[in-house]
Amino acid sequence: MISHYIQEAISRGSIIRVMFERGRKLKAQYGADQVFDLTLGNPVLEPPPEYFQALHELAELRDKGLHRYMPNVGFDFVRDNIAQRLRERKILPEVTRENIIMTAGAACGLNIVLKAILNPGDEVIILAPYFVEYLHYVTGYQGVFVIANSNPDFSLNLDELASKITPKTRALIINSPNNPSGRVYSQSSLEAMADLLYLKQKQYHTRIAIISDEPYRELIFDGQKVFSVASIYENSFVVYSWSKSLSIPGDRIGYVAFNPAMNNPRMLDALSFCLRLSGMVNAPAIMQWLVNKLLDVSIDINYYQTKRDRIYQSLKSAGYDLIKPEGTFYVFPRAPGDDALAFMQKAMQLNILVVPGQGFGWPTHFRIAYCTDDYTIDRALEGLVALVRSA
Amino acid sequence: MISHYIQEAISRGSIIRVMFERGRKLKAQYGADQVFDLTLGNPVLEPPPEYFQALHELAELRDKGLHRYMPNVGFDFVRDNIAQRLRERKILPEVTRENIIMTAGAACGLNIVLKAILNPGDEVIILAPYFVEYLHYVTGYQGVFVIANSNPDFSLNLDELASKITPKTRALIINSPNNPSGRVYSQSSLEAMADLLYLKQKQYHTRIAIISDEPYRELIFDGQKVFSVASIYENSFVVYSWSKSLSIPGDRIGYVAFNPAMNNPRMLDALSFCLRLSGMVNAPAIMQWLVNKLLDVSIDINYYQTKRDRIYQSLKSAGYDLIKPEGTFYVFPRAPGDDALAFMQKAMQLNILVVPGQGFGWPTHFRIAYCTDDYTIDRALEGLVALVRSA
Repeated sequence: MISHYIQEAISRGSIIRVMFERGRKLKAQYGADQVFDLTLGNPVLEPPPEYFQALHELAELRDKGLHRYMPNVGFDFVRDNIAQRLRERKILPEVTRENIIMTAGAACGLNIVLKAILNPGDEVIILAPYFVEYLHYVTGYQGVFVIANSNPDFSLNLDELASKITPKTRALIINSPNNPSGRVYSQSSLEAMADLLYLKQKQYHTRIAIISDEPYRELIFDGQKVFSVASIYENSFVVYSWSKSLSIPGDRIGYVAFNPAMNNPRMLDALSFCLRLSGMVNAPAIMQWLVNKLLDVSIDINYYQTKRDRIYQSLKSAGYDLIKPEGTFYVFPRAPGDDALAFMQKAMQLNILVVPGQGFGWPTHFRIAYCTDDYTIDRALEGLVALVRSA
Repeated sequence: MISHYIQEAISRGSIIRVMFERGRKLKAQYGADQVFDLTLGNPVLEPPPEYFQALHELAELRDKGLHRYMPNVGFDFVRDNIAQRLRERKILPEVTRENIIMTAGAACGLNIVLKAILNPGDEVIILAPYFVEYLHYVTGYQGVFVIANSNPDFSLNLDELASKITPKTRALIINSPNNPSGRVYSQSSLEAMADLLYLKQKQYHTRIAIISDEPYRELIFDGQKVFSVASIYENSFVVYSWSKSLSIPGDRIGYVAFNPAMNNPRMLDALSFCLRLSGMVNAPAIMQWLVNKLLDVSIDINYYQTKRDRIYQSLKSAGYDLIKPEGTFYVFPRAPGDDALAFMQKAMQLNILVVPGQGFGWPTHFRIAYCTDDYTIDRALEGLVALVRSA
C-alpha cells in the first residue's frame, strides 16, 4: 500500500532517525540521565514569559471570527506588522503585506515556494553541508537537486557554485546562520554570490531564485547583525520560522516574504494556491495571533552564546578541529580520523549521541546540538575530550 | 518564476474564487449587509464555550516541553484518547494510537495519505459531485483522477463505480456526509461498495484503498448515526478535522486513522515521513493539546438542523428540485433550466451569491452554504423563491 518512493525512503531511514532509535535503547538500558544526547535541534528552553502572557490574552479574547478561515495568505494585520519589521531591519526594505504569506513554520514555507516555482526537471542548488530534508522537498515537486560544496571553513565557495549553475538551474537554497556548521555568511560573500547569479541569469536568459531559509536568523552571536541576501537580490524569498526565536518548534508558525522587486503580480496568488493545495490551507489562526503579539520578543541569545563559548573552548583546547559558530545552536567539528561514522560509534560507547556528517552531505565532521541542559553538555564534553585525546 | 502547472491553475481560477471576488465588488458597491453570500463553508458560529475554557487552562499550563517538537505523529496521550473514542463509536473497532497520526486538518490528512500511497500514474476514483481540491491533491502526487458520478439523488452509484475501477486503481475518496449534496451514504450501500472493492481487488490482484474524508461526520441530522465504511474495509483511512464540529477551521487540526486490519507495519512510518516532508512536520502542539480536552464536545447540531429545515421547506415549497440534506451545512438544489451558471448570474443580480455546480463536477445544480446568519439566509431565500417562480 505504500508508494515505492516512500517505501524506499523509510526503509533506508535517515541517519538521524537511526541515532534516535539507538539512543532510545541506550536510555532504556542505562537510564535517561546516563545517556548524553546531542542529536536533536529541539530546544529544552521554554518559550519566553511574553508567550504565556499572550496566550492568556488570547483565552480572554472574544473577537468574532478569529477562529474561522481567513484568506489563505493569513491575517492582514499580522502580515502588515511583519512587513513593517522587515522594512525597518532592511531585510526586505520595500516589502508590504502583499509580499507575505503566513505558513506553518519554515519547512512549510520552503515547500510552498518550491511547489510554486518548480517545473519537472528544474534544478535546485543546495549548499553542503545541508539540512537533509531539502533534498526530499526538491524531489517532492519533481525537481532535481544539485549539491555545491562550501569551503572547508564553511564559507561560500563561489567557484564551486558557479560550476554547478546550468540553464536548468531554477533556484538556490541558502541557510545562514547555517545548520549544521553555525557559519553566518558575510555580507561581502553574499554580495558576490548575488552578482554571480545576476551574471548567470543574463548568460542563460533564465531566472534563478534565491530561497533564503532563515529560521536561525535571530540566533546570532557576538553582537553581529543579520544580513539577508534577499535584500540585494530581486528574485528572492525569505523563509522564516518562530521555532527557534520563541522556542516553540512544536507550534508551527512562520512566513514566506518575497522581494517586491521580483515584480511578479501573481506570486502571492501562486504561494497562496500552493499552501491551499498542500493541505495546510492557512497558518493556524491562533498561532498567527500569538506571534503578532511577540514580534519584538525573543528568547535570550546569551543562553546559547554561553553554551557555544564553553563547548567551543573545551573542544578546541582538547584538540578538535572546528570553526567557532557565529550562530544557531550547533557546532560541527571534524571527527578525529576524518571518519564521522566510526567516531559516532566510539562516542556511543560512552553513551554520547552525536550526528555524523553523512546526514548533512559532509562525512568528515559531526554535529553537536547544544540546545540542551548544561548537565548533558558537560558530561558529553568530558567524553568527547577523552575521545580526541585517545585518537 | 511561477511553474507552468501553478500558473495555469491560478490563471484559470476556481469558480468559487471568481464568486468570491465578484461578491467583494458587490459588497463594496451596495454595502456588506445588502449582499447575501451563501458561497463559503466558513461557519459564522463561534467555537463552543469549552474551547475558551481549554484555552484558559492552556495559558496556565507550564508543562515543560509542551511547545517542543514531539514525534511527527503527534502526542501519545492525544492519540490514545482519540483511539479510545474511535473504538467506542465503532468507527474503527480495533484501532490504537499506532494507527493514528495528528494532522493540520483534513486537507493535510488527505495529502499525506495520497503522498504515502500513490505511485506516478496510479488512479484515484473521486465521486461526483466532489470537493474540487481533491483533483489537485491527486495530481500533486502524480496520480490520475477518475470521476465516477453518483445517482441523481446523490446516493452511491455502484454500477458507475464498478465501470471505473481498473488495474491501476489505487484509491477511492469518499466523503459522507457529502459536500456539496448533504447526502449521508446508507450503511447497506457502503457495505455493497466494500464488497465491490474486495471483488475488484481479487480480480485484479491489487489493493485499493478507501480514503474516507469525514470532516462533516458530527454534522448529521434527525438523530441518524454515523456509519464509517472504514469499519468494514481493511485498506481504509479515516480523515478527520475538528474544523466543523468545533467551528475552528482557521486553527487547522485533525487526524488520519487507518484500519489496523490493513496489516502494514510501516504505514504509520510512511504517513509520519510524508507529514515531515510536506513541511507540516507535526500538527500544531497547542491545537493537539486543546482538542484533546474537547473530544466529547461539539457545537450544537440543532443550530444547523434548524437552518436546514427552514431552507429545505422554503425551497421545496417554492418549486425547487432538491434532496433533503442529511448532514453538512450545504443544500444542493437543481438550478431552474438545469444551467447553474446562468442561474448564478440571475441570483447575483439580486445580490445573492451561490456556487454553481460546475465547481463540483455537477453543472445542473448549485450549492448553498447555510453556515451563516439567519438574516442573510432569509433575505437570500426571498430572492431564490422569486427566481424559481419567475423561471
